Amino acid sequence: MTSGALRSVPDGLDAVLQLVREEGTTTRPHIARALGLGRNVVTQRVAHLMERGLVKEGELASSTGGRAPRGLQFDAEAGYVLAAEVGATSITAAVTDLSARIVVQHEEPADVTAGPERVLDRVQAIFDDLQASVGRTSGAWGVGIGVPGPVEFASGRPVAPPIMPGWDGFPVRDVLAKVYDAPVWVDNDVNVMALGEHRVGVSRAVQDFLYVKVGTGIGAGLVSGGHLHRGAQGCAGDIGHITVASDSGIVCRCGKIGCLEALAGGAALERQGAAAAEEGRSPYLAKLLASGTAIDAAAVGAAAAHGDPVGTQLLMRSGRLVGETLAALVNFFNPALIVLGGGVVSSGDVYTAAVKEVLFRRSLPLATRDLRINRSQLGHRAGIAGAASMVVDELFSPVRLAAWLDAGTPSGLPQLVNLPAR
Amino acid sequence: MTSGALRSVPDGLDAVLQLVREEGTTTRPHIARALGLGRNVVTQRVAHLMERGLVKEGELASSTGGRAPRGLQFDAEAGYVLAAEVGATSITAAVTDLSARIVVQHEEPADVTAGPERVLDRVQAIFDDLQASVGRTSGAWGVGIGVPGPVEFASGRPVAPPIMPGWDGFPVRDVLAKVYDAPVWVDNDVNVMALGEHRVGVSRAVQDFLYVKVGTGIGAGLVSGGHLHRGAQGCAGDIGHITVASDSGIVCRCGKIGCLEALAGGAALERQGAAAAEEGRSPYLAKLLASGTAIDAAAVGAAAAHGDPVGTQLLMRSGRLVGETLAALVNFFNPALIVLGGGVVSSGDVYTAAVKEVLFRRSLPLATRDLRINRSQLGHRAGIAGAASMVVDELFSPVRLAAWLDAGTPSGLPQLVNLPAR
Repeated sequence: MTSGALRSVPDGLDAVLQLVREEGTTTRPHIARALGLGRNVVTQRVAHLMERGLVKEGELASSTGGRAPRGLQFDAEAGYVLAAEVGATSITAAVTDLSARIVVQHEEPADVTAGPERVLDRVQAIFDDLQASVGRTSGAWGVGIGVPGPVEFASGRPVAPPIMPGWDGFPVRDVLAKVYDAPVWVDNDVNVMALGEHRVGVSRAVQDFLYVKVGTGIGAGLVSGGHLHRGAQGCAGDIGHITVASDSGIVCRCGKIGCLEALAGGAALERQGAAAAEEGRSPYLAKLLASGTAIDAAAVGAAAAHGDPVGTQLLMRSGRLVGETLAALVNFFNPALIVLGGGVVSSGDVYTAAVKEVLFRRSLPLATRDLRINRSQLGHRAGIAGAASMVVDELFSPVRLAAWLDAGTPSGLPQLVNLPAR
Repeated sequence: MTSGALRSVPDGLDAVLQLVREEGTTTRPHIARALGLGRNVVTQRVAHLMERGLVKEGELASSTGGRAPRGLQFDAEAGYVLAAEVGATSITAAVTDLSARIVVQHEEPADVTAGPERVLDRVQAIFDDLQASVGRTSGAWGVGIGVPGPVEFASGRPVAPPIMPGWDGFPVRDVLAKVYDAPVWVDNDVNVMALGEHRVGVSRAVQDFLYVKVGTGIGAGLVSGGHLHRGAQGCAGDIGHITVASDSGIVCRCGKIGCLEALAGGAALERQGAAAAEEGRSPYLAKLLASGTAIDAAAVGAAAAHGDPVGTQLLMRSGRLVGETLAALVNFFNPALIVLGGGVVSSGDVYTAAVKEVLFRRSLPLATRDLRINRSQLGHRAGIAGAASMVVDELFSPVRLAAWLDAGTPSGLPQLVNLPAR
């Protein structure tokens, strides 16, 4: 353990590592040019990273005159990370390499309302199986986990999460850190997905973007200047409870009236779809109900996909409400890209079209001039990629690199110290 | 001129300078502890900054045992900055020191619609007078300017500004950089005010906050993790054109229906106040009108301050609409603090109360648990403080410090190079 005081790394070490990570393959002369560092300094920093096993020598690169420089590669297999996404009704967990690439993954149904002890026991059991399947029993460099509720990031504890009874204030971070003897980071699932999209998805290299999830709940992850914006209490992006119809009389699970989620979320679609089936307004849904299938949001999506007018109508109504809300947020935040994800969005293009139509009509021309709106291509993988990226970004932050160098192990797996997160 | 390539500064130099700037007075041992740097490195970095005249030796500090260390001070008078705020109807300009403290200031009426040449000619004339009054004809370290419209920050050009005819795409930055042979930064007035509040106002040290200006127009400045969030096109914070009453039939100057600004901004209050005066609904305003005074937003504020029920009602209606909009943005952005500024807000406590009442009712408890909502204490000074802070922050950024060291002038005023802004 260290004192937790700010330490500094040798000049440029973190920048060199970041460049190698981003570029995959590079050369010493390229690093010197890109970072404005002297050749000697670059040689020393690269040697330092090689000692730690983070960078390895590659093929001869092409020459621009003179002796061809040797290529350098980030060694993503120098260590591994445990990443998990706890959903309302499922657990997904994986072993990833240091580029957040999934090595092995497992998904199973689960009930988050069973409480933190039981859910985290399952997460651990899965982690252990996954580690065993890659021939390890211990040695993860870090653990990252996303949960479906607000989290105080600094302490790794959920804060008054509405759909996670028993989790309020539970020390998820501390419990897992003890088990794995490794640093642990915990965040809200939508933040984690936003980070995943930002590191490996369509929004790579986009500095200002929004990830919006429309599923049972509705939430957003904000990236500002390339960094996740978590907000003062870590609850930024809670757009499901923005009032969109104060005179609707529809009471949300949060107790307020007319929240976006209560009118446009998965539960609302389920309720509206079931009513349409029972009242015979939707032939498709009525047939489904008669065959004994419960009507849920996915069924409404299927109805729309089969050309059922009521199914299409319900989806479009949800999409328009989401579009209305996003129009205000686009004026406010001016993102370059919005990535739409979640079960309701995946139900079809009609949904994205409805969002766009309202959004472009209601936002200012300057804010929408170059705005792209895409459906998530990563889907469920965004959560795991994001949880792993969260770990790797923190591991290679300057403060942690410094602690690592302090620990002084010669090579291979570092003796990681569990510094408090910033 | 340099190539614009990224250069690096000696390890810790920028951090040492930042610490001295923030703390005002410090000591070498304190710097070493706070930054985790070795004593020799600190001594060298401080010597470097002293050579440049940025840091000076102060009094003997109190000892914690052993020889008392000598105090170090940031020398805010090592150079000066020209800062200006161009408003819709006024120009404010000042000479400030390197802590953004105003040395001398001038304000005069102006009409931004007269176009960039005429307005910037006046700005230059005022700058020249102000410089002369402090015994200088040239040598400003940088120039910062806020204008009432969206700006592409990287190029320093206004982009389709609605109330600034003739300014679209005008190279404000380049024109002033040529005149003053110094680097120039241009930004939206509300961003500049947010920065001013963040550097010298109530929001000092608050990492996530919103500055909201309610005047003729309505706009917001966003600070995320201590940094201004400008958005992809630099138009983040344009909340005046969020739709709040799509069925109101009230057409905004942007062409859309039911924008916040069209219902709650200064022009709306003026229109509503004038109608109340003409129809005799407000005795106070009717008397004012009969005495030949034009009814504007300030008159509505005065009516409310004198207990006139209609004046109070109009202010509260505006405040509630602003509060409704901010409730959504609080759920989305989760700031720790909202600072309310602008002419309409300054009209009285009844306004702030109306904003708060709706905001706290409509936002999530977690997001409002520790949320503070304050009226700006800086008022007009926020713009100048922000414009000057923008310049000083950029001057002392690592990339610019590096360029400065490269230029190799021994001491005193640096030969600043006009690097492209990041």
